[in-house]
Amino acid sequence: MLQITPEEGQKRVKTRSLAVLDLGSGTFRLVVYAYQPGRFFHLAEELREAVALGEGLATGRIAPEALERGRKALRAFADFLWAAPVDEVLTLATSAVRDAENGALILQEAEALGLAPKVLSGEEEARLGALAVANALPLGDALVVDQGGGSAQVSLLRGRRFAWGRAMPLGALRLTEGFLPSDPPAKQEVRALEREVERHLKALPLPPGLPLVGLGGNLRAVARLHQKRQGYPLDLLHGHYLPREAVEELYRDLMALSLRARAELPGLQPDRARTLPAALAFLRALLRRTGALGLWVSGVGIREGALFTRLLPPPHLLPDPRAFAVDNLFLRYPFAVEHRERVKALALALFEGLRPLHGYGEEERRLLLEAAHLHDIGMHLGYHEHHKHGAYLVLSEPLYGLTHREQALLALLVRYHRRGNPEPGGFRSLLARGDRKRLKRLAVLLRLAEMLERTRSGRVQGVRVELGEEVRLHLQAEADPWVERVEAEKQAGLFQEAFGLGLRLLWAPTSP
Amino acid sequence: MLQITPEEGQKRVKTRSLAVLDLGSGTFRLVVYAYQPGRFFHLAEELREAVALGEGLATGRIAPEALERGRKALRAFADFLWAAPVDEVLTLATSAVRDAENGALILQEAEALGLAPKVLSGEEEARLGALAVANALPLGDALVVDQGGGSAQVSLLRGRRFAWGRAMPLGALRLTEGFLPSDPPAKQEVRALEREVERHLKALPLPPGLPLVGLGGNLRAVARLHQKRQGYPLDLLHGHYLPREAVEELYRDLMALSLRARAELPGLQPDRARTLPAALAFLRALLRRTGALGLWVSGVGIREGALFTRLLPPPHLLPDPRAFAVDNLFLRYPFAVEHRERVKALALALFEGLRPLHGYGEEERRLLLEAAHLHDIGMHLGYHEHHKHGAYLVLSEPLYGLTHREQALLALLVRYHRRGNPEPGGFRSLLARGDRKRLKRLAVLLRLAEMLERTRSGRVQGVRVELGEEVRLHLQAEADPWVERVEAEKQAGLFQEAFGLGLRLLWAPTSP
Repeated sequence: MLQITPEEGQKRVKTRSLAVLDLGSGTFRLVVYAYQPGRFFHLAEELREAVALGEGLATGRIAPEALERGRKALRAFADFLWAAPVDEVLTLATSAVRDAENGALILQEAEALGLAPKVLSGEEEARLGALAVANALPLGDALVVDQGGGSAQVSLLRGRRFAWGRAMPLGALRLTEGFLPSDPPAKQEVRALEREVERHLKALPLPPGLPLVGLGGNLRAVARLHQKRQGYPLDLLHGHYLPREAVEELYRDLMALSLRARAELPGLQPDRARTLPAALAFLRALLRRTGALGLWVSGVGIREGALFTRLLPPPHLLPDPRAFAVDNLFLRYPFAVEHRERVKALALALFEGLRPLHGYGEEERRLLLEAAHLHDIGMHLGYHEHHKHGAYLVLSEPLYGLTHREQALLALLVRYHRRGNPEPGGFRSLLARGDRKRLKRLAVLLRLAEMLERTRSGRVQGVRVELGEEVRLHLQAEADPWVERVEAEKQAGLFQEAFGLGLRLLWAPTSP
Repeated sequence: MLQITPEEGQKRVKTRSLAVLDLGSGTFRLVVYAYQPGRFFHLAEELREAVALGEGLATGRIAPEALERGRKALRAFADFLWAAPVDEVLTLATSAVRDAENGALILQEAEALGLAPKVLSGEEEARLGALAVANALPLGDALVVDQGGGSAQVSLLRGRRFAWGRAMPLGALRLTEGFLPSDPPAKQEVRALEREVERHLKALPLPPGLPLVGLGGNLRAVARLHQKRQGYPLDLLHGHYLPREAVEELYRDLMALSLRARAELPGLQPDRARTLPAALAFLRALLRRTGALGLWVSGVGIREGALFTRLLPPPHLLPDPRAFAVDNLFLRYPFAVEHRERVKALALALFEGLRPLHGYGEEERRLLLEAAHLHDIGMHLGYHEHHKHGAYLVLSEPLYGLTHREQALLALLVRYHRRGNPEPGGFRSLLARGDRKRLKRLAVLLRLAEMLERTRSGRVQGVRVELGEEVRLHLQAEADPWVERVEAEKQAGLFQEAFGLGLRLLWAPTSP
């Protein structure tokens, strides 16, 4: 009998912990990652303080109250790490500390607390953000834009490598302080801000036609507003696509709102309400300047970039981000690795054998194998609804390298790997032409593979597909695999629906 | 740093496996439980075959095709157990095998397959169902009614003990075959069926005024229809309350439907469509006869009863089903046991110290401690949304001894244990008067306790509550617990909302 053995598949590799203290100009964050080099990571802790350290930056000096908030947050973080130690601490300071005349006061405090702070140059900051994007989005070439509170970094990725990056004084807090004193912002104030953004962007050698990626809490806040308006079916920001028209529409609707009215917007964190107009105007100017049709939102940034420098040897790139993400999810819910491998092999044999019928290619093959990889992770949550639990888990975190459409398809395949009629349901709006059929066909293949492993014993050693008036599956086994045959036969109706042919299962005896 | 260590809290007790083959008159099932005696269990496997073995029972003999379906299912089950062995197999046959002249043919097949079948007498069958109910519903005295395919058992529970039980030939399949030949059933056919049910019920010494509990797939199917109609907010059948009017309404609306129309009803399994009228008419007659205002639906029955005979020594009763269920859930997602215990202790101290303000009693105290017990189980699914994941897990399976209202409150407390404004949301329809306030207040207490353990280090050793113009919490610690104090202070607004008073946090130094 198969039990839930959570440690199964977890190699005996020591799990390390890394704390990253990100002393941003808007927000200070302490995050703790647990990781196994090259293999696995997850976020274990996060503390967030909206210090608005960049307050006063327009004057060149951090304001005294902002300094005090920053010191207080540092003391809290140091205190946390004292009480709950980690293997390594990286303390990274960015624009406010870098640019302000009195930024050293924050560094002194951090030093005194034993936090060994490092001030990132604009280029280093850009590099870490770009590294995170290179590992987490399926883009080889891209313009990466990270708008923080004090500065905004623009970088160019070429073939997943950092080509160049520059920090500009275009952070959302700095722009708000420098250009938008009125509440709501006056039109001429917004114009002046936009001219400033354009002036800086003009100075950059921006190659045309590249996908644009946006990082940082300010742009994520815009994306969240967009999702709320749409009734977006996924609770994931990373990988969200924000089309240019949506930004124009948000700009039209929200720029004239007062701070109070903005604070009421559903889904907006209170400290983001203040900087929303500056973020929106920046984003709109960026889209206009680059001519991009939209922006890919990244949920990862310099903190994850820092993690990747520890997780992976130089150049710190995951060989295959998508494969890593799928396996990283599996490793949270490891279950029956040998069964999983057999289901994958059977699904693949069915996919290949039925190729003349479906004509699918690499995209579908990969999705099917990923679904087979993850199909049983929901077992950790309970047997009865494990297909539904598995789908919930697949959608519970960003999967690097998969689009939201692909992630939804993956969740649906897991959802339908044992029962139910495969239908897109609430995810229809994410899907593309042909996906309904694609879902049905791939779900049938996965389900057949699962039923051929119904006893999870490996006694069906392989399957040969014979095409004809009907489809015959010859199950290679030493003795008649009765349960597998009976259970797979129950899928004949769905198979007929998906492929338009009858299905027959036969035992093909193998020698012991 | 705290990592997810899935094996934490799992004592090194051998997990055993028990297969129960339930050869029912409507359905054959193979279930496999994994369990640790006295401590823990979960369902690990289930195969279901709608054999309708009781077909022909009205003639006194199982029909040849039904026999063949039964044999085939037995072979599949035996084959499964051969390929995936378990520690123990219990094969239990009920009405169809017990009552039919040729029932022995099924037993012979089972014997030949090495399944060592046992025919349960009507009383034994009743006893196992009643045992499951005694462990899984918060009722001391109850009438327990288990309608199978061939027979229906009525038992009396007194102080959770089986007082008496009897099997009657009132199974849904038998009634359908014997009384409802027409499609849709004719009125006079239904009358005759009802007279038969009444005749049998009259012969029983039914004490008035007892809660009524319904078991078995046929009654669960009725409950599912009721939930679908209501748009019930939980995906749980066990513990559902089916009021008498709802049964009358379903009877009115569905009795005249044809088999085909019934098969289209959302949420009804195909094989239940056939027996639905008999199940509905039986249930309605039962409610009328007993005068009960409704029926508690049980998701557990003789298979769980059999499990309890292995999980627990005689009399096989869980000392505290509710405590067992909550801990059983925790043990699926064990996380930071020491932290959990400290949060419970802190929550309890806050609850007791604030008693003059809230005036709550045992019910609320228990719920708060259960929420503290489970608050972090969602960490297994990811840090960022672990409060939401935890709520999902709390609602993912029946929790014995909790009503659906209590289970929803528990999920909401877990949901709001770290952020968000505690509101009932979609669960409003399940809640009682005062629950909105109750939720808010208990959520604040839990959240404060969690924040006082923000570093999960135990350095806040205790808390003393001082009531006055404002509420002061004195945190007992050797050094100033900065993070805990700062994080708890952030809850002052919510505290004010919940209790109408300000909140101050102070360090009360203790000697090292």
